[in-house]
Amino acid sequence: MLRSSMAAVMRAIVVREFGGVKKMKVETDMPAPSVGDHEVLIKVHASGINPVDTYIREGMYASLPELPYVPGKDGAGVVEALGAKVTKFKLGDRVFCSINGRYGTLASLTSAPETRVFPLGENLSFEDGASIGIPYFTACRALILKAKAKKGERLLVHGASGGVGLAAVQMGRELGLHVVGTAGTDEGISLVKATGAHEVFNHRDPKSLKNLGAEKFDIILEMLANVNLDKDLTLMNPRGRTIVVGSRGPTQINPRNLMMSESSVTGVALGTSTEEEWAELAAHVVAGTESGWLKPPVHKVYSLEEASQAHHDIIHSKGAQGNLVVRVTE
Amino acid sequence: MLRSSMAAVMRAIVVREFGGVKKMKVETDMPAPSVGDHEVLIKVHASGINPVDTYIREGMYASLPELPYVPGKDGAGVVEALGAKVTKFKLGDRVFCSINGRYGTLASLTSAPETRVFPLGENLSFEDGASIGIPYFTACRALILKAKAKKGERLLVHGASGGVGLAAVQMGRELGLHVVGTAGTDEGISLVKATGAHEVFNHRDPKSLKNLGAEKFDIILEMLANVNLDKDLTLMNPRGRTIVVGSRGPTQINPRNLMMSESSVTGVALGTSTEEEWAELAAHVVAGTESGWLKPPVHKVYSLEEASQAHHDIIHSKGAQGNLVVRVTE
Repeated sequence: MLRSSMAAVMRAIVVREFGGVKKMKVETDMPAPSVGDHEVLIKVHASGINPVDTYIREGMYASLPELPYVPGKDGAGVVEALGAKVTKFKLGDRVFCSINGRYGTLASLTSAPETRVFPLGENLSFEDGASIGIPYFTACRALILKAKAKKGERLLVHGASGGVGLAAVQMGRELGLHVVGTAGTDEGISLVKATGAHEVFNHRDPKSLKNLGAEKFDIILEMLANVNLDKDLTLMNPRGRTIVVGSRGPTQINPRNLMMSESSVTGVALGTSTEEEWAELAAHVVAGTESGWLKPPVHKVYSLEEASQAHHDIIHSKGAQGNLVVRVTE
Repeated sequence: MLRSSMAAVMRAIVVREFGGVKKMKVETDMPAPSVGDHEVLIKVHASGINPVDTYIREGMYASLPELPYVPGKDGAGVVEALGAKVTKFKLGDRVFCSINGRYGTLASLTSAPETRVFPLGENLSFEDGASIGIPYFTACRALILKAKAKKGERLLVHGASGGVGLAAVQMGRELGLHVVGTAGTDEGISLVKATGAHEVFNHRDPKSLKNLGAEKFDIILEMLANVNLDKDLTLMNPRGRTIVVGSRGPTQINPRNLMMSESSVTGVALGTSTEEEWAELAAHVVAGTESGWLKPPVHKVYSLEEASQAHHDIIHSKGAQGNLVVRVTE
């Protein structure tokens, strides 16, 4: 184990008990994380906010960190210290990460296993880098590992204007799919179009929704299954695959709609990835940052003091429009 | 085309309009089917009854025959005539079949494509042979092609005392799975046990159902998704697969239960099999008749005049106990 050569304490958002956004407090004397042999200490410049961060903070998630903890899975910054056995990075490297555990990215320092740290090219800002992790890895896991997407297939991204949705639109285009998106606001629709979707429908407009069914889909990425799943089952081609990325409650479906088409509904959870799968996901995503098709759509940047507002906004804002990022270090 | 050398008319159940069981009438002057180059004319001794036969008769099915039609997909008998290009069979061969179309097996003669006709060993009766088709091919398609069952996995056959359920219990044992079944009556439970299930639970007894969840499953074959699917979602191991074989209405589920386990729900429909898949299914099933693990559980034999009663019983009898068969020719 190597202690950071830097500050023994750091500025961080600290949660001392699970609950609402008010449980997120800025503290300036949080002990910095230790760095294991295979870990990298990162000076965090930006932290990406994802819905799962709020489920964990509420204490409503399958796997919860020990308290107190620092929220934030995704982040970007500069390598500050290296564990003894780290080989892929050197001090000063620009990196992004996607991690678990007690010491998250809403802090001036975070430690991450080498396998969850990835190079960040000069073409991308730290805010961009903080927006890559969960959105792109989830889209990649859903489209490639779960749906096994093939060139020419028709993809519906049901809820395309949020982080995972926009990542899926970009990745779907890169994979050679015909990409159809939905959004609930004019701004969202414009953004999904600008991000590359061939067609965009308004999922709050019944007339628009009716047209959505004119041609069916091989793959549906479903961000809000409790609202849309029953309809998804009627929108699939034979052997179609609906991948559930998000759901916030029970819903009614007609299982018979799966039968004649032999279509399927499968859940996806990035956290269940094996080491081999992480390596495969990383290869796709890092290649995307290098070749340029991967362009994280940063919507709004908050200060560390506003992190709780970012947690509120990612769940409650009507119509997502891209990623929310907290600027941790100026 | 080769006309049968035999009777130009035959005794058959004829349906002249879709509807209830009373639409099934015995007629004695129905024209016998013609026999195409790649078809086999079978003198039918026994016809197997399956739930899908009743959906078709009601006119409530995706693919309906032209009227009038003769019901019955599964059957067994003796080869009576051969199309010019048939190579796999000779006159007098004992066979079973699983077919589609206007000229079903509830008739003294039926014609079937060579690829849907299979040899029936002397160790099996015509009633046995008539009980093989849909139940065993469906169980095989569900377990092998859809669930991709691997030795040592835990299988729940949710509704194990009907035709497909008992076939799945036998096939599950043959595949090296740990087989757990459910049934709704004491007779059903005894039969599922006798058929080879390692454990059997009463799905009408809340106490028994509670114990069912003590250890989870890799594969669930679900015969009545509208009743059981929500519970199935809580019974799956990581990457578990629920295969929907039957469903008779809408139901409420919690899609979130698919997410952390990355489990899935997939429909199965035998009728969507490609020619290559039919060949694979047939290889498994015919091998089972030869090696002896495949023993069709014939529950009750009806006369042709009682065929409408058999259609009634397969849907309405409380607690299935194996296959229902109509003896067509003595």
